[in-house]
Amino acid sequence: MRPTSCTAITCTALTRPLARFAGLLSLFVSFTCTSQADEGMFPMSELGKLDLNAKGIELTAEELFNPKGLSLVDGVCRVNGCTGSFVSPLGLIITNHHCAYDAIQKASSPTRDLLANGFSAASLAEEIPAPDYQVRVTEDYRDVSVQVLAAVTADMSNLDRKKAIDKRAKELEAEAEKANQGLRAEVAEMFAGKTYVLFLYTYLKDVRLVFAPPQSVGNFGGEVDNWEWPRHTGDFSFMRVYTAPDGSSATFSKDNVPYKPKRFVQVDPKGVNENDVVFLLGYPGRTARHKTASFLKFEQNVRLPTIIDLYQWQIAVMTQAGAEDRSVEIKQASRIKSLANVEKRSRGQLQGLIRASIVPTREKQEAELQSFINSDPARKATYGNLLREIESVYSEMAASAPLDIHLDQLRSACRAVSFGFFVYDAAVERAKPDLDREATYMDRNYTDSIQKLKTSMADFHAPTDQTILAGVLQRLAKISAASEVPALKALLAEPTKIDAQAARLISKTKLGDVAFIETCLAQSAAELAKSTDPLLQLVVQLYPTFLKSRETDKAREGRLGQLYGPLIDIKQKFLERDFVPDANSTLRLTSGRVRSYSPSDAVVKMPITTLRGVLEKTTGIEPFDTPAAVIEKYNSGNDQRFRSAVVNSAAVNSATLNGLSANDVPVAILYDTDTTGGNSGSPVFNSRGNLVGVNFDRCFEATINDFAWNTDYSRSIGVDIRYVLWITGVAYGAEHLLNEMGVGK
Amino acid sequence: MRPTSCTAITCTALTRPLARFAGLLSLFVSFTCTSQADEGMFPMSELGKLDLNAKGIELTAEELFNPKGLSLVDGVCRVNGCTGSFVSPLGLIITNHHCAYDAIQKASSPTRDLLANGFSAASLAEEIPAPDYQVRVTEDYRDVSVQVLAAVTADMSNLDRKKAIDKRAKELEAEAEKANQGLRAEVAEMFAGKTYVLFLYTYLKDVRLVFAPPQSVGNFGGEVDNWEWPRHTGDFSFMRVYTAPDGSSATFSKDNVPYKPKRFVQVDPKGVNENDVVFLLGYPGRTARHKTASFLKFEQNVRLPTIIDLYQWQIAVMTQAGAEDRSVEIKQASRIKSLANVEKRSRGQLQGLIRASIVPTREKQEAELQSFINSDPARKATYGNLLREIESVYSEMAASAPLDIHLDQLRSACRAVSFGFFVYDAAVERAKPDLDREATYMDRNYTDSIQKLKTSMADFHAPTDQTILAGVLQRLAKISAASEVPALKALLAEPTKIDAQAARLISKTKLGDVAFIETCLAQSAAELAKSTDPLLQLVVQLYPTFLKSRETDKAREGRLGQLYGPLIDIKQKFLERDFVPDANSTLRLTSGRVRSYSPSDAVVKMPITTLRGVLEKTTGIEPFDTPAAVIEKYNSGNDQRFRSAVVNSAAVNSATLNGLSANDVPVAILYDTDTTGGNSGSPVFNSRGNLVGVNFDRCFEATINDFAWNTDYSRSIGVDIRYVLWITGVAYGAEHLLNEMGVGK
Repeated sequence: MRPTSCTAITCTALTRPLARFAGLLSLFVSFTCTSQADEGMFPMSELGKLDLNAKGIELTAEELFNPKGLSLVDGVCRVNGCTGSFVSPLGLIITNHHCAYDAIQKASSPTRDLLANGFSAASLAEEIPAPDYQVRVTEDYRDVSVQVLAAVTADMSNLDRKKAIDKRAKELEAEAEKANQGLRAEVAEMFAGKTYVLFLYTYLKDVRLVFAPPQSVGNFGGEVDNWEWPRHTGDFSFMRVYTAPDGSSATFSKDNVPYKPKRFVQVDPKGVNENDVVFLLGYPGRTARHKTASFLKFEQNVRLPTIIDLYQWQIAVMTQAGAEDRSVEIKQASRIKSLANVEKRSRGQLQGLIRASIVPTREKQEAELQSFINSDPARKATYGNLLREIESVYSEMAASAPLDIHLDQLRSACRAVSFGFFVYDAAVERAKPDLDREATYMDRNYTDSIQKLKTSMADFHAPTDQTILAGVLQRLAKISAASEVPALKALLAEPTKIDAQAARLISKTKLGDVAFIETCLAQSAAELAKSTDPLLQLVVQLYPTFLKSRETDKAREGRLGQLYGPLIDIKQKFLERDFVPDANSTLRLTSGRVRSYSPSDAVVKMPITTLRGVLEKTTGIEPFDTPAAVIEKYNSGNDQRFRSAVVNSAAVNSATLNGLSANDVPVAILYDTDTTGGNSGSPVFNSRGNLVGVNFDRCFEATINDFAWNTDYSRSIGVDIRYVLWITGVAYGAEHLLNEMGVGK
Repeated sequence: MRPTSCTAITCTALTRPLARFAGLLSLFVSFTCTSQADEGMFPMSELGKLDLNAKGIELTAEELFNPKGLSLVDGVCRVNGCTGSFVSPLGLIITNHHCAYDAIQKASSPTRDLLANGFSAASLAEEIPAPDYQVRVTEDYRDVSVQVLAAVTADMSNLDRKKAIDKRAKELEAEAEKANQGLRAEVAEMFAGKTYVLFLYTYLKDVRLVFAPPQSVGNFGGEVDNWEWPRHTGDFSFMRVYTAPDGSSATFSKDNVPYKPKRFVQVDPKGVNENDVVFLLGYPGRTARHKTASFLKFEQNVRLPTIIDLYQWQIAVMTQAGAEDRSVEIKQASRIKSLANVEKRSRGQLQGLIRASIVPTREKQEAELQSFINSDPARKATYGNLLREIESVYSEMAASAPLDIHLDQLRSACRAVSFGFFVYDAAVERAKPDLDREATYMDRNYTDSIQKLKTSMADFHAPTDQTILAGVLQRLAKISAASEVPALKALLAEPTKIDAQAARLISKTKLGDVAFIETCLAQSAAELAKSTDPLLQLVVQLYPTFLKSRETDKAREGRLGQLYGPLIDIKQKFLERDFVPDANSTLRLTSGRVRSYSPSDAVVKMPITTLRGVLEKTTGIEPFDTPAAVIEKYNSGNDQRFRSAVVNSAAVNSATLNGLSANDVPVAILYDTDTTGGNSGSPVFNSRGNLVGVNFDRCFEATINDFAWNTDYSRSIGVDIRYVLWITGVAYGAEHLLNEMGVGK
């Protein structure tokens, strides 16, 4: 397989399967910011307003994003929840190892452990189908704010307003999908209660695994190094997407052919050095940069500490259960990992909120805004109470948070309860017209939802569930409002009997049994309500409470949407500049530089790690068990490609020894771009738009990104392209992939 | 109290109480090394052979050390196990907080908690006597190798040889003390089996506490930060030594007057910056730089891993006991701290041995040495078997180590056994002529030994002792050689009954009872052997085994002494240069620079920490509970003394934010001098011999110093003189002490 050799970003594929919508609306007026600061996850529509040159980017806005022609963005796609980049004209995609993890795991068997040993397809024929994967390519988008907001009237309640917006969005999606057969439409809220955009996507369904390093490279450092820098993880894999011979999206077939991306991105084997400009394209999930100080106080004082406490407890329970039984350990590993990830992130966020004084800073900004509002009677009349009203919503949330959070844990942390809730909720929702349902139960999503439920049932372990159920009930017993929940009244009345009750409920329930769940899924709500399963009975009795809680959440969301819309307006007027909307899983560009940082007094962390550092961390015990092939190839030094004469700048020449390695293979890079969860797999480009890395994490202190940008602490982490190429080509000999990417010998 | 103002090192006191020995011998021939390297703990006699200028020291060898006149060394003293510096003409001494700890603790009462609140004497009259303290001033020394070695003959057994050397040393000490009334003589082995030096000391016995910061400053970071950098500990205290009105050494009396040191050292409130030259004077304890690779292998493979395992277990046992009972926690805190200190140091040493490849490096050097030896028949005949024979001793030690180490733990970790051993051993030894006794029981030491025993009995806790005794016996039961120990045979025969046996022994023994121990101390060995105390009975039965072990140790030591002597000779010939002897608690000089280091890939640790960093670490919970006075004085910023415009060099200007603080109070400094345990309290001098810090620790990676110098990792830690002065003068207002030191407003 030798693709036509081509260079850099002038390289394009031949076909453009779909024409674009013309005449895109600009989402945000007067975006004139030319700041050198690194904050900003910029929507594509705003690139023309940025001074890209001042940011060090050598491409024009049109070379980055061009709805009427080809641009760099066409080389980027979404791979399930991650970002991917097309790196050859034959649909070859690079993304993170942790993004391809499920595919690698599913393709493994006891006799062929691809997670442990890695995988390298010698030819297209050897590539392994990943049936649970879809690659999403953005075809177009348009502003639908007017259409969406036409559904609401001033006299609507908060709840009705929220429901009306949701329903109108679903209608617009259905219309667009009807008009664009084969595409999927999704409406995204850009500014709450203000701006809505409809995106059109192609979903490609024949995705195959091409190359994965052993887990001991792709997940080197594991949980220990998660959220940490310095990092030494080769968190990358290659996949390939196929289409029907006519280029249309199709599920797996031997007759399918490699997808021809509209264009691909060129990898640059030279990589980047300290202080070099980099920029990323990706789909950051959620940020709260436009939220008020009252929201941040709610997070800092109420939600984050409660979640940290609850998750630490659950992780301890599961770890204890795993220590006693290896099969339980394996079963719960993924759930522990997921909770540990959120727990550590939450700790980082809490530390960051406190250490960077984010609440007082935002309070000060809001005090200035309030003065501005009050200085004009007309403004005061329109906007005068906004901040106060928003605060009252969060105060209400804070007051009910202990009960709300623990009820939510009762429904989610206790797995059998969550399975029971799904089946009963499905029965209720599926009885409604499609557009009126919760999204999970809409026809377009339901098959996926069932699949996810079944996957998640694999981690069920009755003794753990019993401990968790008992623990959550014990905690609820200490919250006075909980005893007013009808379904819980009797259970919580005698705290000394809670353990026995939990034991009874879990021992008697069949909700952990897939066959029983399947039977339930075929039943109506009325039928389920007659079940003799005691835990399902508890779920049915709790359901009105859960339902009320969901409605309350929607009402609050609607209310906040109503308040945040005008708040954004007046903030814009006050600051005389525009804002970038909070992240919402839509495509964004962020730029910065390869940069060190100082997490604490007298400690400096340099921005490039090396293979020597991998060996330094290697203990031979997971998660620090480097494969022999890597150690041998590194020590032999026969193949000197992808080494760098100087790693990190000479700035610390006098200071450092290990920090300034020479002639070593760079492994991971650190940069001050603005990312958040959802940026996994984002391509890291150099100033010319060539691929120099794949983003996969943030440093611990950068968990603060979700609340505020911080020039001292906001650092993201990517695997260096040189390590990608060294592992792929030098350590594991997949020279044909290097050739396909145009960087072979 | 305003002492005469004076400047820098020209400042001297008026009296020289004792004349020196004249005509000092040079201990080591042809010392011509002018290396720029920082390795080396140089004995005073060698300073004239060093190129001090090349090291950046602006003083001449005579200004540093001059047996015929005054020199910087005369400003340095020993304070119990630590080093101290005279910092005023009135006997004011600065040393570490942890060195003054016992004095502060003993002066505290529930109503006057000096550990928690700190202490500042407003006048001489308020200074608090520290009766357990002695300040030792070195008066002179001379080489006594010829006299010592005259006691041995070629046909002596190893054990007899060792005993003969010990006895001759004791005789020389007795002679010297007779000839120099009031002085104490001590013979130190410089090179094993080769060089011996007799030191003459004055012991000053009226020591008083002058100033101590609160423990939350003096021990900030506690065990968490022990052996760590960055460090933020204000580990200093001031004491003062008094003499009888005639200047002679005397115990506490109201009539005593401040001691007039021969000279004192001048503090420099400007401190040092990154890369500045510093040098230290102090009493490093033990190093093993001249030991063979076979010794290092014994440490790496046998002793260190076993000690780490045993200590971790004992710490866990005591921590568990403390978690259940606060009074037990307090009682055992000091012992836990002491074990944790050794455990962490041992872990660091083990990591360092492996990471710096010290064994293979030394093996390579020895292979070269062996080739040199073999290349000449005469050399080969004399030295050819040395390395092999040394290795055979360590092999023998490795083979018996499991039993030896666990028997030693049985005697020391189980406190009641150790108390029993002391009284029985004392009875046996005290029956011998004074010079034939183990040093502990010689008349000149016995009172101190008894005092130490009683102090150590304060941490006795029967349930902990029972767990430890049972655990050590369980471990011994797994060592086959242990069942051959007559006293243990029956005990170990049935492992399932060991716990019950330990319970019986501890519940029935009175060895934890001070009154019982006092009764025992009055009895002969024969009387003790008749005791009905079951644990004392066990000790008596074990005694022959312990005794044999002590004799075996001495025989090995004698044998190694015999082998290492010629090994040092031939190494000198091979390398054509001299060696600095291993540390042996005698006065040494070491020099280096204020220097950052990189403990691991991409991490750089800057060499100066700041008060901002103290606040950054402050959580309000011990050991990070900064006193309100410190926080307030720092935040008020009213008194700007002792701040530094730039902290750390500008080398990392582009890289760092926190690492490069401006206008802050430096707190601790890091430098690459060559120190080891025993350097606590060592003065840190700038190039002109002015005091800029007080040494108190090494970084984790520098625990390796005991085995080998490493330019990458060997870093020592001192409290910055600016923090000393800021805490003393600005935070706690002891302006009169600053004036006494000549650095007041």
